[in-house]
Amino acid sequence: MEETFVPFRGIKNDLKGRLLCYKQDWTGGLRAGIRILAPTTYIFFASAIPVISFGEQLERNTNGSLTAVQTLASTSLCGIIHSIVGGQPLLILGVAEPTVLMYTFMFNFAKDRKDLGQELFLAWTGWVCMWTALLLFLLAVLGACSIINRFTRVAGELFGLLIAMLFMQQAIRGLVEEFGIPERENLNQTALQPSWRFGNGMFALVLSFGLLLTALRSRKARSWRYGTGWLRGLITDYGVPFMVLVWTAVSYIPVNDVPRGIPRRLFSPNPWSPGAYSNWTVIKEMMNVPPLYIVGAFIPATMIAVLYYFDHSVASQLAQQKEFNLKKPASYHYDLLLLGFLVMLCGLIGIPPSNGVIPQSPMHTKSLATLKHQLLRNKLASTARNSIRKNSSLSDLYQSMKDTYNGMQTPLAYQLPSALGLKELKESTVQLASSAGYIDAPVDETLFDVEKDIDDLLPIEVKEQRLSNLLQSLMAGCCVAAMPVLKKIPTSVLWGYFAFMAIESLPGNQFWERILFLFTAPSRRYKVLEKNHETFLETVPFKTIVAFTMFQTAYLLLCFGLTWIPIAGVLFPLLIMLLVPVRQYFLPKFFKRAHLQDLDAAEYEEAPSITLNLSLEDLDLQSRTTNIDGGETLDEIITRSRGEIRHTHSPKTSSLTPTPPEGSPRMSQLVFSPRLNGLRGERSPPTERTGLETTQASGRSFHGSSS
Amino acid sequence: MEETFVPFRGIKNDLKGRLLCYKQDWTGGLRAGIRILAPTTYIFFASAIPVISFGEQLERNTNGSLTAVQTLASTSLCGIIHSIVGGQPLLILGVAEPTVLMYTFMFNFAKDRKDLGQELFLAWTGWVCMWTALLLFLLAVLGACSIINRFTRVAGELFGLLIAMLFMQQAIRGLVEEFGIPERENLNQTALQPSWRFGNGMFALVLSFGLLLTALRSRKARSWRYGTGWLRGLITDYGVPFMVLVWTAVSYIPVNDVPRGIPRRLFSPNPWSPGAYSNWTVIKEMMNVPPLYIVGAFIPATMIAVLYYFDHSVASQLAQQKEFNLKKPASYHYDLLLLGFLVMLCGLIGIPPSNGVIPQSPMHTKSLATLKHQLLRNKLASTARNSIRKNSSLSDLYQSMKDTYNGMQTPLAYQLPSALGLKELKESTVQLASSAGYIDAPVDETLFDVEKDIDDLLPIEVKEQRLSNLLQSLMAGCCVAAMPVLKKIPTSVLWGYFAFMAIESLPGNQFWERILFLFTAPSRRYKVLEKNHETFLETVPFKTIVAFTMFQTAYLLLCFGLTWIPIAGVLFPLLIMLLVPVRQYFLPKFFKRAHLQDLDAAEYEEAPSITLNLSLEDLDLQSRTTNIDGGETLDEIITRSRGEIRHTHSPKTSSLTPTPPEGSPRMSQLVFSPRLNGLRGERSPPTERTGLETTQASGRSFHGSSS
Repeated sequence: MEETFVPFRGIKNDLKGRLLCYKQDWTGGLRAGIRILAPTTYIFFASAIPVISFGEQLERNTNGSLTAVQTLASTSLCGIIHSIVGGQPLLILGVAEPTVLMYTFMFNFAKDRKDLGQELFLAWTGWVCMWTALLLFLLAVLGACSIINRFTRVAGELFGLLIAMLFMQQAIRGLVEEFGIPERENLNQTALQPSWRFGNGMFALVLSFGLLLTALRSRKARSWRYGTGWLRGLITDYGVPFMVLVWTAVSYIPVNDVPRGIPRRLFSPNPWSPGAYSNWTVIKEMMNVPPLYIVGAFIPATMIAVLYYFDHSVASQLAQQKEFNLKKPASYHYDLLLLGFLVMLCGLIGIPPSNGVIPQSPMHTKSLATLKHQLLRNKLASTARNSIRKNSSLSDLYQSMKDTYNGMQTPLAYQLPSALGLKELKESTVQLASSAGYIDAPVDETLFDVEKDIDDLLPIEVKEQRLSNLLQSLMAGCCVAAMPVLKKIPTSVLWGYFAFMAIESLPGNQFWERILFLFTAPSRRYKVLEKNHETFLETVPFKTIVAFTMFQTAYLLLCFGLTWIPIAGVLFPLLIMLLVPVRQYFLPKFFKRAHLQDLDAAEYEEAPSITLNLSLEDLDLQSRTTNIDGGETLDEIITRSRGEIRHTHSPKTSSLTPTPPEGSPRMSQLVFSPRLNGLRGERSPPTERTGLETTQASGRSFHGSSS
Repeated sequence: MEETFVPFRGIKNDLKGRLLCYKQDWTGGLRAGIRILAPTTYIFFASAIPVISFGEQLERNTNGSLTAVQTLASTSLCGIIHSIVGGQPLLILGVAEPTVLMYTFMFNFAKDRKDLGQELFLAWTGWVCMWTALLLFLLAVLGACSIINRFTRVAGELFGLLIAMLFMQQAIRGLVEEFGIPERENLNQTALQPSWRFGNGMFALVLSFGLLLTALRSRKARSWRYGTGWLRGLITDYGVPFMVLVWTAVSYIPVNDVPRGIPRRLFSPNPWSPGAYSNWTVIKEMMNVPPLYIVGAFIPATMIAVLYYFDHSVASQLAQQKEFNLKKPASYHYDLLLLGFLVMLCGLIGIPPSNGVIPQSPMHTKSLATLKHQLLRNKLASTARNSIRKNSSLSDLYQSMKDTYNGMQTPLAYQLPSALGLKELKESTVQLASSAGYIDAPVDETLFDVEKDIDDLLPIEVKEQRLSNLLQSLMAGCCVAAMPVLKKIPTSVLWGYFAFMAIESLPGNQFWERILFLFTAPSRRYKVLEKNHETFLETVPFKTIVAFTMFQTAYLLLCFGLTWIPIAGVLFPLLIMLLVPVRQYFLPKFFKRAHLQDLDAAEYEEAPSITLNLSLEDLDLQSRTTNIDGGETLDEIITRSRGEIRHTHSPKTSSLTPTPPEGSPRMSQLVFSPRLNGLRGERSPPTERTGLETTQASGRSFHGSSS
């Protein structure tokens, strides 16, 4: 995206681009059928559960002016509007931790002012939202988002890790509080005796760790040895919500002489209970706010505007990472404009505004990639079976599969040469096949194993549509009504879920991967190189990686520390924004440009023309080599294959020409070479399917080390 | 071992055999140096912790006549004697669950007899022990152990799984009791209020699951990505004891207003506290037992004799499984004789007798195999480095390594052609090397990676010596004195440890593996075949496997159920003994002989001559293909490679001649074949190093399915 600041141009382009595929956004979503519910529920829980407990947090901090009802309402309302008229439907909106911080700061400010106080707090925030909206309009109109590409991985991943830390902090803090005496509780109830508090705390540990461990396991279900395929799939798709139910059920097991209130459960007023809806009419009081404060509202507004500008854009950016290989265009400017309207709306009805959230947005895209993968897989499998039944030759097989594949592509004007992945693969495969003289023989299961080989053909694609987002927003809305049911969830399960989200958001974050790499024993580094891995591991000297990671970590801790400071805390978005100039003007003084590019690969640094098809090749190569059992390791592919331009070449060359310097056969190979005549046996372990790269990778890395 | 019942012959042979290597048993142990402490402590905990809590169990059941002091004393005393004058020093002695059951039955019988009662209970058991000893003498002298080989895997593994179930049952029961009111406690202490009981139970869950999970993890430490090699090794060797300490420390964290007695800790009198040593003088009262009961004592004695005959022999057998490739001879008859004396001794001083225990005995051998592996590894590595430094050729390298290897072999008269493994490997490797023209080039790291390739050369061997057994017995003795310290361990940690032991004993138990296999999704069976796996998976039709496993499971549940029946429970050893004739005369009516042989591979079914060197080839082949990073997957090798006679051939042939029917290149291979020129990259995932077999395995298995 070129950097232009001509007013409205960005917005115009966004609208033009998204309108082209608007209809398909809905039709495509509907065509997915029932399967769409898997990503929907997954994201619904990921977005609703934090929002609910943020609501509880807000209620404590604003002593009751805002509750889970308001946060849920905001999330649902903004979500619905965005999913219908918004630009990028992959973006998930919700009330985020930073918003909660901001509102807490503002409440603490307002409640002490005698001519403002708690009663006018919401009215005042209404004004803050007005100003924020105004600023967002300006940013959107003036094309501030066209510098989005300068938000390189450094900034994005640092922010992502910061959010993960905040989630984990919440989880830990919550667990500790389970041992203590909660606020706004009457102390003379039995559940708060020291003995029961102890029991409650221990029970909380059991429940939260139970949820965390089981939820993490269930995400891996696809690769389990046991159970039928559909069951494993079901568990993977719905396991996490299911575990929330299971552990909630477990929390009801201890009945005999355990007083109610153990374990502690979600606390929130029902939407119909008195006081819960005072906020909706806040607009009437906005005029009662003293002019001074109306003007003064501009100060917090700027902070929120900066925060949302960054948060919203980065969330959107992470949801559209290159490796997802999206077919439909981004829409940063227009979405920011819309966000302005949403903020205004929320301000007027006195609920905290929502914005694009991390890690839910990337989680959303990822789950849609899995969905698309399954859809493609089934379709292609049936095609393949047909042509096997008609025992046609291998080339026919591929032809028919290619046709089916193309048939499933969304026909868009500006779209990439469709099915490049499949075509390109077909050639290389058929070439190899013909060299082995199998090309014209009728295909059979031994030659082409439908179940397994299909996965090798599929490139990563995402089911881009608006339905899942709309549905999950509606569900969030239902939660407001379902509050009595939600209250059955123990808070400890929430804390476990927070920890789960924090951990789920880590893999694929190169910053995190690098931190881990620093702790990897030198003798074990080759293990990392044998997996899919980032290019920099081979091209950047270890010491540089260390230095760079150290710097990033220090910066992260700085940001994290800042959020702890009472009022100055609101400034932490600025600190992250600051990373952009730092990355561009400061870092190059200390690191080689080439190294920075690898450590911080961002699209705008790569020639756009090649980026696309290379990344595509890259991807389908990766999926070809890594992917098994219906997206079992899709996460791996998605999360590991960022900007791996070199990779896309090296395996190619190596796969056609043996390269002596790198492939000089070592003892081990001599010992193992007999295995050539039966590679089929070696297909299962995911790490192992990437042999193409591995060869290269390790080969090169040894050069690196030896030279 | 031929089946002869000539009196004393078995004992004579055993003595002759063991005397030959008696001196070496000590020197070898001492030469191992400090490293011997790893297996020692590992086994010490594995044997002491259950004994302690069995003691607690006994105390409750015999209301104080016997305590942990007596069980520990017995374990230590018998252990010391056996490790010094015993036959097979790999065998670990201890007070076992069955013994506890027996003593409970006897106490319940004695306490109601007015002319016996609790005061004469121990005296009476003294007589029981006399009779038991007598019976054991007879069995030993008449060579009853020469039918030990008829105790096939069916019986042994069923017994192993039964013990595992008893351990797990104890763990669960213990955890449940943490919520209840313990016996012999005054109810008016605060720790027993419902509220605190609830807290205590929950805390127990945290502690026991904490120990279980961390202990299981620490056993895998060798394959961790993080930390330096020696640290990983240390954690693997001492992790479990360390975790017991850690979680005991954790149990002391809650201090503020948590009453003492939470969590509950080990309860046992100190050896010097009154009443704890009344038993030692029991011999004086033995004459006060009415003659009728002296005679009657014969009935329980027979049961105990049968139990010990079976338990002791099977434990010894499992500790000497073929794949451990032991160099020193077995000693069933003599050990049974010695056991007789030990039982008599224990009876006279009024402590429950010890016998060979499962799973500790096989655990002991396994840990010694790891030890030996490390020793060999270091020695060979240094040799290799030297010859690389002198850049000698590959063949020289192997020659020098072979010499070192032979140097480390214990020179025993009847020993196998030593270092067969290494020699045989050298040939095949050198052959391959020379074909690639590397044979005379000076070796360098790329050609022979010391760190990694050494492991591929090492066959499984066990550091057979008496030191570790003696030391762990002495440690158990020290526990009696250290009782005040032991009492700091929370009981919940014990329950966690019980669960850990139960789980640790499962892998390698083919019965268990088969149960898992039944639950494996058909589409995932190939995954099992890609790992090391038992031959029967390929040779026996699935339905037969199901039938056989079903039968075995039913039988297991029968035995387990029997232990629940109050008095008849003592008969469960008979039920297991019954398996021997059942296996020999009953099963062949329902299963093909060949299938039975594979499902129940036992040495006596294989021609002894080939068994040895084949099993050896097999082993070193396995170690060559599976083993990485200093015994990282040694467990795998040890536990998976039982009686794999077919295997040892198939990989050989396949490794030299490509076999089209099996290796008919499938799509995948065509796609992947480029990887041939860089197999080095694929060395890490354990499952994956077994390519040689995999090829075959899957290949054959597909024939099976297709035909």
